[in-house]
Amino acid sequence: MSRLRGKAVIAQGGGPTAVINQSLAGAVLELRKFPEITQVWGARHGVRGIVDETFVDLSEVTTHNLERVAQTPSAALGSTRDKPDAEYCQRILGVFRKHDIRYFFYIGGNDSSDTVRIVGEHADREGYELRALHIPKTVDNDLPVNDHCPGYPSAARFVACGFAGIDADNAALPGVHIAVIMGRHAGWLTAAAALARRHDDDGPHLIYLPERQFSIDRYLSDIDRVYRRYGRCTVAVSEGVWATRDGKGEAIPLVADLMRRVGREPQVDAHGNIQLWGGALADELTDAVRKGLGIERVRADTFGCLQRSFPGVVSDVDAREAREVGEKAVHYACWHHLDGSVVIKRTGDYAVNYELADVKAIAAKTRYLPDEFIAADGNDVTDAFRSYLRPLLGDGMPCLERLRAPAARSRDDA
Amino acid sequence: MSRLRGKAVIAQGGGPTAVINQSLAGAVLELRKFPEITQVWGARHGVRGIVDETFVDLSEVTTHNLERVAQTPSAALGSTRDKPDAEYCQRILGVFRKHDIRYFFYIGGNDSSDTVRIVGEHADREGYELRALHIPKTVDNDLPVNDHCPGYPSAARFVACGFAGIDADNAALPGVHIAVIMGRHAGWLTAAAALARRHDDDGPHLIYLPERQFSIDRYLSDIDRVYRRYGRCTVAVSEGVWATRDGKGEAIPLVADLMRRVGREPQVDAHGNIQLWGGALADELTDAVRKGLGIERVRADTFGCLQRSFPGVVSDVDAREAREVGEKAVHYACWHHLDGSVVIKRTGDYAVNYELADVKAIAAKTRYLPDEFIAADGNDVTDAFRSYLRPLLGDGMPCLERLRAPAARSRDDA
Repeated sequence: MSRLRGKAVIAQGGGPTAVINQSLAGAVLELRKFPEITQVWGARHGVRGIVDETFVDLSEVTTHNLERVAQTPSAALGSTRDKPDAEYCQRILGVFRKHDIRYFFYIGGNDSSDTVRIVGEHADREGYELRALHIPKTVDNDLPVNDHCPGYPSAARFVACGFAGIDADNAALPGVHIAVIMGRHAGWLTAAAALARRHDDDGPHLIYLPERQFSIDRYLSDIDRVYRRYGRCTVAVSEGVWATRDGKGEAIPLVADLMRRVGREPQVDAHGNIQLWGGALADELTDAVRKGLGIERVRADTFGCLQRSFPGVVSDVDAREAREVGEKAVHYACWHHLDGSVVIKRTGDYAVNYELADVKAIAAKTRYLPDEFIAADGNDVTDAFRSYLRPLLGDGMPCLERLRAPAARSRDDA
Repeated sequence: MSRLRGKAVIAQGGGPTAVINQSLAGAVLELRKFPEITQVWGARHGVRGIVDETFVDLSEVTTHNLERVAQTPSAALGSTRDKPDAEYCQRILGVFRKHDIRYFFYIGGNDSSDTVRIVGEHADREGYELRALHIPKTVDNDLPVNDHCPGYPSAARFVACGFAGIDADNAALPGVHIAVIMGRHAGWLTAAAALARRHDDDGPHLIYLPERQFSIDRYLSDIDRVYRRYGRCTVAVSEGVWATRDGKGEAIPLVADLMRRVGREPQVDAHGNIQLWGGALADELTDAVRKGLGIERVRADTFGCLQRSFPGVVSDVDAREAREVGEKAVHYACWHHLDGSVVIKRTGDYAVNYELADVKAIAAKTRYLPDEFIAADGNDVTDAFRSYLRPLLGDGMPCLERLRAPAARSRDDA
């Protein structure tokens, strides 16, 4: 098979992660080794930069610069929330033709993989030879076929560390502490709070995921039980418990009621998702405990976007894998002349293999937390989930130590 | 002067920090060297553990355990919000007499230093020989006389790192991003966001501190100006901008109006402080930008308590100084037979000396950000503040790198 000669374009789409630039560096550094790649261009702000023809020349970036960018969170090329339809993809293809772009690498989540699929199909139909590859990334960990997604382990590390700190804080000043954690549809990030536990009585004592119907009454009776036992209670709640999973964008009664009370109509975005509202919801969950259980010291934190771009809180496993999926995408394209999505498969405990999947198996699908990872009562995760996540968090996880001091009694000589 | 023989009690008060256990370890390890200290006890949950006589024996803790606890955030002995009055302090003194406790070390902020003052005065009056020392700690950095307070540099490091991530995220997906940061009266923590800047156009583009009156109109016009210039804007806001500084606990009109709309009365605590409400306030600031400026992509994060207990995000300068103030307190008590509060004085750029101050100069006073640290327009900090904070953040601050890629143009051979 003769080698396909032309330019390569790489772009980054969707929400940033702590390691998305590792994938960029992995792909760019590898692409620069292949003589048939005439230039390596980066599109600014994802597919938007393709149709706007705002490209930068990544052939002329120093290796040192790329290596330092690799260690920097957030998408160095810029990202986009644009979700191209057929017409948009047609414009992308027009730009590819114009500049003799023959290789397209898109680092992103579900929407980005779908873009790769549509652009690839258009090229096929028109007989324009193009390699189109999807490089996975998402802190949400919700891409099917993959064991896990680059970006998730570092965000999970942030959540586990952050929650360990919150729980230690709560042990020092006992009360109820609620952390609202990102994850509209799938509970992967919220579940990561479970890795904060070391001692039997460490929190999170309760974990609520969007995979299970949320009930405020159940939430209150759970907290009441834990609080009676330990004199304190820490809770991890996915922001997604407030949205239904049916995709109709209907708010559950609690949030609809809250929105009415503050005079706001639930906002629904272009994808039919309710505009989530972490801050006010954290306040609402706090208020419910104060009023419903009469507990005075109730606090809440919203992790917000912090975990997807916090510099320095990175899993080395994640950084390495993100680098490798970028590099592997180039291998599949340049050595094997294949299209698709690079996927991570787990083997043993713990190693990974990379494979190439049909992008149709990835695109626009959501992988929820499977039943075996959710405790029967729906308010915790299982040991199976903890075993799944632990190796992903990487080396050097902080270990919170307790004083091992016996109760004091005066010695005879004291 | 003959050496005072008896037990030592150490306790931790107020909000936890990332390095408060360094001070504990510093004091305990040093105390165990002095033969006149018959036992080293720790009081569980601050002064509450003294009056309840819930002591643990820190003479019997291994050095290894103490060293690991030193690296663990949050108060290992437990903390308290109790603010003792004269009668409470009398009870403390009664317990001291009962157990022959002659050394009292209290690690904490303003309230804790005031407790040390009252207990010391009672002991003096009654002729009970007691060494009473205050060891400073507070993420709020608001203790007078000190150049800075142990706990603040690590929390400031978290804020600077977190904001750098948020700003990089916002550069990738442009819009307006607001971060609400802890600090009821003084803006030290919020100001730390300024250290996230590296390039001229890095955020935070605007910083609002409780030392200046907040105006929603000014806030909107500031954002509008930045957004027109950069196509994006990141903002650091102290939660304290919502409270007045007059100590009367009156809400400014904006928050009072918000509370009314959600059917809530402003809650005022025992010290006359309004119960702040980061989540809903972040939502309100977001909404104001959407409605007032018609900008679509507006996000907010509330840092909440994360920065005071996040394991692994610690300034080595802070850890070292927190250790040393604990050790120095023991030196002042055991070598010099003195009472007071250990304070940090800056010398050169950058080194510190430790001194002993009269606890009256510390107790129940608040140090605000001085005028020379606040920009004339009241929406930023000055270079003087940045020079003040930079050495405190410690080694290994993440450095966010940008791609240095030229605009692409096709080469002749490409």
